[in-house]
Amino acid sequence: MTAVGIDAIEIWTGNLKLDLPGTFAPEKGEDPEKYTKGLGLNASSFPDSYEDIVTMGANAAHRLMERKGLEPDDIGRIDVATESSFDNSKPVSTYVAGCLEQVYDGDFHHANKGERKFACIAGTQSLDDAYNWIRAGRHRGRSALVIATDTALYARGDAGEATQGAGAVAMLISEDPDLVELSTEQGYGSADETDFLKPNQQFPSVDGKRSVQVYLARMREALEDYESVAGDVHPDDLAYIPFHTPFPGMVRKAGLLGYRHITRETSLEDDLADEIGRQPREEAFDDEDAFRDALREYMDALKGTDQYREWYAETIEPTLSLSREVGNWYTGSVHLARVSALKTALEADRELTGETLLVGSYGSGAQAEIHAETVKSGWKDEIAALNIDEQLEDRYDMSWADYEEVHDVHNHEMDVDVEEFTTPEAEFVFDGWGRMGERKYRYVE
Amino acid sequence: MTAVGIDAIEIWTGNLKLDLPGTFAPEKGEDPEKYTKGLGLNASSFPDSYEDIVTMGANAAHRLMERKGLEPDDIGRIDVATESSFDNSKPVSTYVAGCLEQVYDGDFHHANKGERKFACIAGTQSLDDAYNWIRAGRHRGRSALVIATDTALYARGDAGEATQGAGAVAMLISEDPDLVELSTEQGYGSADETDFLKPNQQFPSVDGKRSVQVYLARMREALEDYESVAGDVHPDDLAYIPFHTPFPGMVRKAGLLGYRHITRETSLEDDLADEIGRQPREEAFDDEDAFRDALREYMDALKGTDQYREWYAETIEPTLSLSREVGNWYTGSVHLARVSALKTALEADRELTGETLLVGSYGSGAQAEIHAETVKSGWKDEIAALNIDEQLEDRYDMSWADYEEVHDVHNHEMDVDVEEFTTPEAEFVFDGWGRMGERKYRYVE
Repeated sequence: MTAVGIDAIEIWTGNLKLDLPGTFAPEKGEDPEKYTKGLGLNASSFPDSYEDIVTMGANAAHRLMERKGLEPDDIGRIDVATESSFDNSKPVSTYVAGCLEQVYDGDFHHANKGERKFACIAGTQSLDDAYNWIRAGRHRGRSALVIATDTALYARGDAGEATQGAGAVAMLISEDPDLVELSTEQGYGSADETDFLKPNQQFPSVDGKRSVQVYLARMREALEDYESVAGDVHPDDLAYIPFHTPFPGMVRKAGLLGYRHITRETSLEDDLADEIGRQPREEAFDDEDAFRDALREYMDALKGTDQYREWYAETIEPTLSLSREVGNWYTGSVHLARVSALKTALEADRELTGETLLVGSYGSGAQAEIHAETVKSGWKDEIAALNIDEQLEDRYDMSWADYEEVHDVHNHEMDVDVEEFTTPEAEFVFDGWGRMGERKYRYVE
Repeated sequence: MTAVGIDAIEIWTGNLKLDLPGTFAPEKGEDPEKYTKGLGLNASSFPDSYEDIVTMGANAAHRLMERKGLEPDDIGRIDVATESSFDNSKPVSTYVAGCLEQVYDGDFHHANKGERKFACIAGTQSLDDAYNWIRAGRHRGRSALVIATDTALYARGDAGEATQGAGAVAMLISEDPDLVELSTEQGYGSADETDFLKPNQQFPSVDGKRSVQVYLARMREALEDYESVAGDVHPDDLAYIPFHTPFPGMVRKAGLLGYRHITRETSLEDDLADEIGRQPREEAFDDEDAFRDALREYMDALKGTDQYREWYAETIEPTLSLSREVGNWYTGSVHLARVSALKTALEADRELTGETLLVGSYGSGAQAEIHAETVKSGWKDEIAALNIDEQLEDRYDMSWADYEEVHDVHNHEMDVDVEEFTTPEAEFVFDGWGRMGERKYRYVE
């Protein structure tokens, strides 16, 4: 069976930056460590006044196509995943294609365009659609362009305000991919939950505590479902576990839960037994509360062991480096986590070809999906070609007053005009509204 | 290769009806034939005050599961296609699953849930996703539930007001389907168009004239693209051509264009030559305007020939019977067209097993897709099991004052309370809002 997976990735950050310990914390009168240590975030990316989900998505896709030497005829589908859409009928992918057609001779009239929505998991769902399309033999030798693009804003003053972010991840899905091959096996944990939603509103209604519980509960279900088809997962078999990262602190909880699950009945559990005992087994308890308490106690102890800390530092921590500097990109976040891990490996000169990533995607509402990826031999060249460090470095560092203006610019219910903070160069920009209320775009040389 | 396609279909109409010649035309002071002959519509379906896209979708899906004897464990994915969504993050499929879990012992935690948006073509895109998922070998023997559900409302007084409609189509996608097998081959015609859109608004902005042109242009591209992979299409090979039907009058134009295209260079063109000449060939004209004029003249003449009229009456007219009584169901419309055709065949005692349908889907913004379907031997039982005639008959016939109230009830920007016109029975109903602004549902015995 021919390998199918991600051939290339490109990332496009919003051109503005909000410094959380330096700008946000003082304004809120909070200890900067609430953000840097508690949430695990240093900064958030924001779109400048001429940026939005279309420009960021089109810019990421354009960079990807240029780097891989692609023409529109090489692309058979363009899927956009977003929960920041600004039209209830016309998909963002048509706008992205319209942008790209401004800079290529060919067109995308032959390409199936789509848009998926399911909170933060839709990027992975679109990846899966592209994989299935190729496996179904319907791709005619063409590749798929999957774009996860979001402007993750909360209402001003909302508890989630510190976890905002904005950016796009573009992925090329192909046969014989250079970066990672996707597993056929998938695991799902999916339930009708009211943890985070946007009922006819741009900014989310969030039940923060419930949201954390639901993330963990659905992720555990997905892992169990994955193991039921792919066999038991063992920590030694995994190089990295990129999780959806609403903020790095959430992944700390997911990592702990995951480690407990995959070490159960292994020699790793035995190795820890002298120090913290063995994992509590539900069948040994008469009472569910007592079992839950014992489990909590075990997890607390596990968290402090060297064995766990070392595993976390090697397997999870490297997935968080980009997220710490950009905040939550919703549909793009888990794909940033994958890049963070591979980038860390490249910088440490670690060889990864043939190694396995276990990818844990999640969307509120709620659904988790687990699948595996095998790193392919082209991974170093692919990751080395990214310019994300320069992009992050080049962001304009907003003052608090700048931030307040920028939040208003991207609020769909406000109509404010703000001078741009950065100068667009070799990128697509928002160019005003057309006569039917459509957003228009142009390419700036 | 195992056949993959639609195993079963169920339809759920909104429980209210607006009589176009009897109620709408007199109120507008228009000749009733403007609607019945011009648009080709007799009535529109509307949701009662306790209905919405979730209840209609869940009711169609429930009927389908009951009829086919399915449990949640038989379903591996639930995809909803809609352009009437009421949440920017949480997908309608989670609400539908939540409804169904109220009436089944099992749950859908193992099922991948999704939501697709691309005007009216997303239903077919979701069908394609399900097909690809099975072909990719990821379905673990399970089937997919694809639900196309919409409340197609226009602003009061808009030119599109007469073409409104509301209802859901649920489809079960499986291996070895009872109803139709889908072709691997697909043809696309897709461009970034501003013909119909909903920029941060519930009701569409429409350029009616452009919309008709774009429908025809994209459909022609899709047909040419389809023929480039599947070979030339010949009228004799097709039992029916279900098109997306915003209103039957649109399909009259599409049928004519399609017939001209597929009869070119065939003996059918020769048969017509004495009466109306041969089709104009672009290469015979120096001037594009002259060619366009000649083409228009040929099409006008073609429309009046017995040969074309007979073909249209046999191949296209039967696809419009349901649409005429319910209006535009957006994502569900092309799937209603398929059912209309099969139902006409059943009523005429025509044998269809092994025959081919060419399905022309379309979404504004804009994209057309053409694929073929082969009718399977179970089709008669499947179609005979539908109760759509009773559903249409049972609708409450609204007065003009009723209609005005109902339109307001379903306007997201209004907060009105209207007594229900019908009594729900054995169906899911809207049950008010929860504390986070979520819509809640319950099953009424």
